Amino acid sequence: MSRMKVGIVGATGYGGLELIRFLHNHPVVEQIDLFTSSEEGVVFSSKFGHLVTIIDSPLQKIDYEALSKLDVVFASTPSGVTSELLPPLVGKGPKLIDLSGDFRLKNPASYEQWYGKKAAPLEIIEQSVYGLTEWNAHNVKNASLIANPGCYPTAVLLSLLPLLKAQLIDPNYLVIDAKSGISGAGNKPSQTTHFSEVNESFSIYKTNTHQHIPEIEQAISMFANVETTITFNTHLVPMTRGILSTAYAPVMPGITEEQLVTCLQTTYEKHPFVRVITDINSLTTNRVKGSNYCDIFVKVDSRTNRATIVAVIDNLVKGAAGQAIQNMNVQLDLPQTTGLDVVPLFI
Amino acid sequence: MSRMKVGIVGATGYGGLELIRFLHNHPVVEQIDLFTSSEEGVVFSSKFGHLVTIIDSPLQKIDYEALSKLDVVFASTPSGVTSELLPPLVGKGPKLIDLSGDFRLKNPASYEQWYGKKAAPLEIIEQSVYGLTEWNAHNVKNASLIANPGCYPTAVLLSLLPLLKAQLIDPNYLVIDAKSGISGAGNKPSQTTHFSEVNESFSIYKTNTHQHIPEIEQAISMFANVETTITFNTHLVPMTRGILSTAYAPVMPGITEEQLVTCLQTTYEKHPFVRVITDINSLTTNRVKGSNYCDIFVKVDSRTNRATIVAVIDNLVKGAAGQAIQNMNVQLDLPQTTGLDVVPLFI
Amino acid sequence: MSRMKVGIVGATGYGGLELIRFLHNHPVVEQIDLFTSSEEGVVFSSKFGHLVTIIDSPLQKIDYEALSKLDVVFASTPSGVTSELLPPLVGKGPKLIDLSGDFRLKNPASYEQWYGKKAAPLEIIEQSVYGLTEWNAHNVKNASLIANPGCYPTAVLLSLLPLLKAQLIDPNYLVIDAKSGISGAGNKPSQTTHFSEVNESFSIYKTNTHQHIPEIEQAISMFANVETTITFNTHLVPMTRGILSTAYAPVMPGITEEQLVTCLQTTYEKHPFVRVITDINSLTTNRVKGSNYCDIFVKVDSRTNRATIVAVIDNLVKGAAGQAIQNMNVQLDLPQTTGLDVVPLFI
Amino acid sequence: MSRMKVGIVGATGYGGLELIRFLHNHPVVEQIDLFTSSEEGVVFSSKFGHLVTIIDSPLQKIDYEALSKLDVVFASTPSGVTSELLPPLVGKGPKLIDLSGDFRLKNPASYEQWYGKKAAPLEIIEQSVYGLTEWNAHNVKNASLIANPGCYPTAVLLSLLPLLKAQLIDPNYLVIDAKSGISGAGNKPSQTTHFSEVNESFSIYKTNTHQHIPEIEQAISMFANVETTITFNTHLVPMTRGILSTAYAPVMPGITEEQLVTCLQTTYEKHPFVRVITDINSLTTNRVKGSNYCDIFVKVDSRTNRATIVAVIDNLVKGAAGQAIQNMNVQLDLPQTTGLDVVPLFI
Repeated sequence: MSRMKVGIVGATGYGGLELIRFLHNHPVVEQIDLFTSSEEGVVFSSKFGHLVTIIDSPLQKIDYEALSKLDVVFASTPSGVTSELLPPLVGKGPKLIDLSGDFRLKNPASYEQWYGKKAAPLEIIEQSVYGLTEWNAHNVKNASLIANPGCYPTAVLLSLLPLLKAQLIDPNYLVIDAKSGISGAGNKPSQTTHFSEVNESFSIYKTNTHQHIPEIEQAISMFANVETTITFNTHLVPMTRGILSTAYAPVMPGITEEQLVTCLQTTYEKHPFVRVITDINSLTTNRVKGSNYCDIFVKVDSRTNRATIVAVIDNLVKGAAGQAIQNMNVQLDLPQTTGLDVVPLFI
Repeated sequence: MSRMKVGIVGATGYGGLELIRFLHNHPVVEQIDLFTSSEEGVVFSSKFGHLVTIIDSPLQKIDYEALSKLDVVFASTPSGVTSELLPPLVGKGPKLIDLSGDFRLKNPASYEQWYGKKAAPLEIIEQSVYGLTEWNAHNVKNASLIANPGCYPTAVLLSLLPLLKAQLIDPNYLVIDAKSGISGAGNKPSQTTHFSEVNESFSIYKTNTHQHIPEIEQAISMFANVETTITFNTHLVPMTRGILSTAYAPVMPGITEEQLVTCLQTTYEKHPFVRVITDINSLTTNRVKGSNYCDIFVKVDSRTNRATIVAVIDNLVKGAAGQAIQNMNVQLDLPQTTGLDVVPLFI
Repeated sequence: MSRMKVGIVGATGYGGLELIRFLHNHPVVEQIDLFTSSEEGVVFSSKFGHLVTIIDSPLQKIDYEALSKLDVVFASTPSGVTSELLPPLVGKGPKLIDLSGDFRLKNPASYEQWYGKKAAPLEIIEQSVYGLTEWNAHNVKNASLIANPGCYPTAVLLSLLPLLKAQLIDPNYLVIDAKSGISGAGNKPSQTTHFSEVNESFSIYKTNTHQHIPEIEQAISMFANVETTITFNTHLVPMTRGILSTAYAPVMPGITEEQLVTCLQTTYEKHPFVRVITDINSLTTNRVKGSNYCDIFVKVDSRTNRATIVAVIDNLVKGAAGQAIQNMNVQLDLPQTTGLDVVPLFI
Repeated sequence: MSRMKVGIVGATGYGGLELIRFLHNHPVVEQIDLFTSSEEGVVFSSKFGHLVTIIDSPLQKIDYEALSKLDVVFASTPSGVTSELLPPLVGKGPKLIDLSGDFRLKNPASYEQWYGKKAAPLEIIEQSVYGLTEWNAHNVKNASLIANPGCYPTAVLLSLLPLLKAQLIDPNYLVIDAKSGISGAGNKPSQTTHFSEVNESFSIYKTNTHQHIPEIEQAISMFANVETTITFNTHLVPMTRGILSTAYAPVMPGITEEQLVTCLQTTYEKHPFVRVITDINSLTTNRVKGSNYCDIFVKVDSRTNRATIVAVIDNLVKGAAGQAIQNMNVQLDLPQTTGLDVVPLFI
């Protein structure tokens, strides 16, 4: 395969840094251009010392002509940026993979309600493809613009979709209690990410108001053909990486734990990045750290006949940069694991 | 008031260390004797360097005669120890406060099922008083033997009991997702508490099988007069201290968020250690760290009409040693805050 | 003793919060007023949730008349503030205890060189007393203005002064390698205190340029009567509280390790907050956490005849607020431990 | 190149896990056999959940015939094991790379003094080659048995050797203050690695008695041709990975900081894994995390004319498994970066 030139807009965020980490070792990537809205000319490694000798080139000004000559453009910017930035590039050459929330919600009104920002143009939203790779590779393959899923939705959907689609759990009382490491808050300092105040502390935030709620509900409708209103809360864990989602749902009458496990195993048997874990001791966020794995687990409580469905991911990898590259691989007709086949760090 | 001699059995555990930390500054305590089953004669500060010059006395052998002469005996041993150790002392003089699970469950069969150990004698269990101070001070006052509540039940019950008792939330679909710092696992090293493997990792454990489940259900029956079967899961947070419990329940028809908040405020207005928090940013485990506070918070999701009910405590203080001393204060007719009125560390 | 009214200027910093934590339980303090330069009227507990129900009063505007009526004023502001703020109050009534660096250096030129700011008026500097309590209580007692020592100098000086004064170690090759938790950087968010970037990382900063260098050298001259130029470096530890200082010095000819230990023990035998530790396993920063202790340790390497001299403190307590209150106690003729006699948290 | 079969003895330790992490992506490795002394038959991924679907094969019993048929054998066992295990395999076929300390010290008496164990046979020690790759690649290339350097010595030596060899710093007063993450203590639980007791705490250990002292002195003699007796102390940092070494030495008369920097840059200009850092803000342990880089930095204090020489590595990579594979690459005549060219994680 001819080698590819890729660009990253928003390279200075944590999503951008993780894209660089994986693209650096990707066999078909020969060049990585880094774009910025405000720090043109700054030598990248002078900002990010871990890249000294690895990326000593300067940040480039965002320039449509330069971007349009690339094979793939990743955008890893805060929400509200790519809704304006990417539309002129759609269909113009480069495959576009947007890691922000700007093209995920099909309903602009919903975007404006949950994000509090102006939505992207409807015709562009309609062309975008939701890049939950394991569930949408067919559409990802030919997409011009991929809306890469949010970190929480990735964990939640990969664990719940098989069970909802197969009607093994009741969608009418779905409670999802999600927990994330602090890197999910991005790289901009604030009081709530100030080491001394967040270290050694656990908290809940955005009760019932997280913008990933409509994304999850939309994807459940799209892939499992089920309309539901979920309860979803998010918490901050004093660690850098990792998401663990604990979901609760009544099991349908007559359904056994074994059937739930089998359903998950069958669904994902050809999907190398989703692992069905049967020993709860093997299910921790550090067991996927630094990797593109999503590990899932299900247990039924015989006292209540409710299922506990758990998923863990590295929020920056499977929940962002890793899945983005997985989508690029699909677009380029490469094995999904290309450049992503790394062993989790564990410790 | 005459000054008291107190003893601690199981002083080398984290519950024991916290008892020492608070009893050292308790105005009516004049002497603290430390007892051990296996380390007789060991100078306490040689094991616990933070106590050098503070407690340089040796550990004493557990001796019934010595114990029976004390005014108060705290037992902070693993479950399965005090069921045999304390019965001979009941009614013999010292007030007994047991921090283990051995006298909490009124049904010995339930204890044996959930703990996998032999239950205490039924007549002793029947005499014991469940020491959830804010809800049972009247009985605590005259008790010979107090079963100090578990760490998770303390957080869960203080936040849910008012709402269940007032019938503001539906007890038939109660999901409780609890998270604890690692100190809850005690002071014995193991692979699951080994720094390099638990640091920077979040996990779920004991799915639907935690021994605090029957304790919570029993207390809901006892104090709110409601029979229910709960869904309850526990998680490990990579930090030392703190519990945050997130509970989910449908709100009863016609009930508003304001009514829930008012119910909590009214219930606890004369209880200095329970704080009803209305700003979610003020609700984190480090905002109660090192103190006997339990902070609670409630929010209703208008999309689902379900309530999110959150509680935070320091698992070693309000969830163990602090509440034990609070109970001692009640028994001794002292203000509940005596010796416990400390400002949380925050950072 | 009549009860005291105290004020804190700069109450929103970590030094201020620790002052509040201890003053809340101080037996002679009846009122604590909190002053701010910029947040007048803000309810203190709305900013600091751990103080809900404890300090629900508003911040007051800095006002000389109000300040002058107080018995004691603590200033816990960044350097460069009190050099202007406090001079008008000197000798006007309240005892002044400044936790910043503004009055520590007797030579204004040195201050201006190391701090890069304008020095306080010389006549005020000359009146100020350096509040290293164990070494200067006699002068502290009658001081109008106390320059409370820096965090690093407190650890370094308490461990080195006895040995230098007794001429047991050679001052001509003194290397001090100090390490601090992140709270030393204060409460203002920045990239270098952003959780995801400082967590799980250890670093060196301000090589040979830390402003505590002249403070240490001045105090060595003042209390040990030795002129020396030290090598001093500082590092950041991914934890909130704690300083550990490791100092290296040649042992004077013929001097033994035993003599060094004895010198330390003799020096501090009547000083309850300095503990000479002989078992290295008892020497960790968490063994003084939350307390006013300074633990010190010395070991001689027979291969090199050099001593390793170690000290640990809680930077926010003995290194700031705790020592400030210890100085207040001396000024008020109270036992030094008044309000400070707490057991370290350890875990 | 034909593909290689490699084996790991002691695969269940952290060094072993890191070997697996890198060998999994090494282009010439086609098979990895895992050997154990005590857990024969145990499915590896059942012990280490992060390897589910990656290494589901069982551990094999240590068997000389099986080992002798491999191309490369890595031994990652505690000290005292390979001194007996490896001698029969020397010269029998597989290249041997020992990550323990058993073959590092050329003087058996020194080994027995510092390690307190019986030394390996002298003739085997004499054949072993010290695998500090950047300084000994010529000998590594043809070695049957490589003694892979210790974690601390790797950081210390890479930063000091150039300056000592060029006689720019004075070897007669060398003070090295080293700090390590907890993973350096290995995977066996103990009180000193128990999360609640080591978290949020910094400590010093093994004052002047660390077994890496003679290794460092021997290598300084071997590579810089300088005999010296060092002062060396080690500390534990509450984080999992990373070593930072701070060394202090007088600068030789007339030598400038610029000369020191140039010396380092010149020495390592063709060595991709050693980076000379000139901006201190780029020098933190997380900037090499997960990678084989060693970043070094030097600064001269004009007040004392002493140099501060700093090095950071990931103790498990450059300090263990990474350098071991770098040595294998040299033995196999591959580019040193083969399989090791990964971007540090940073966060």
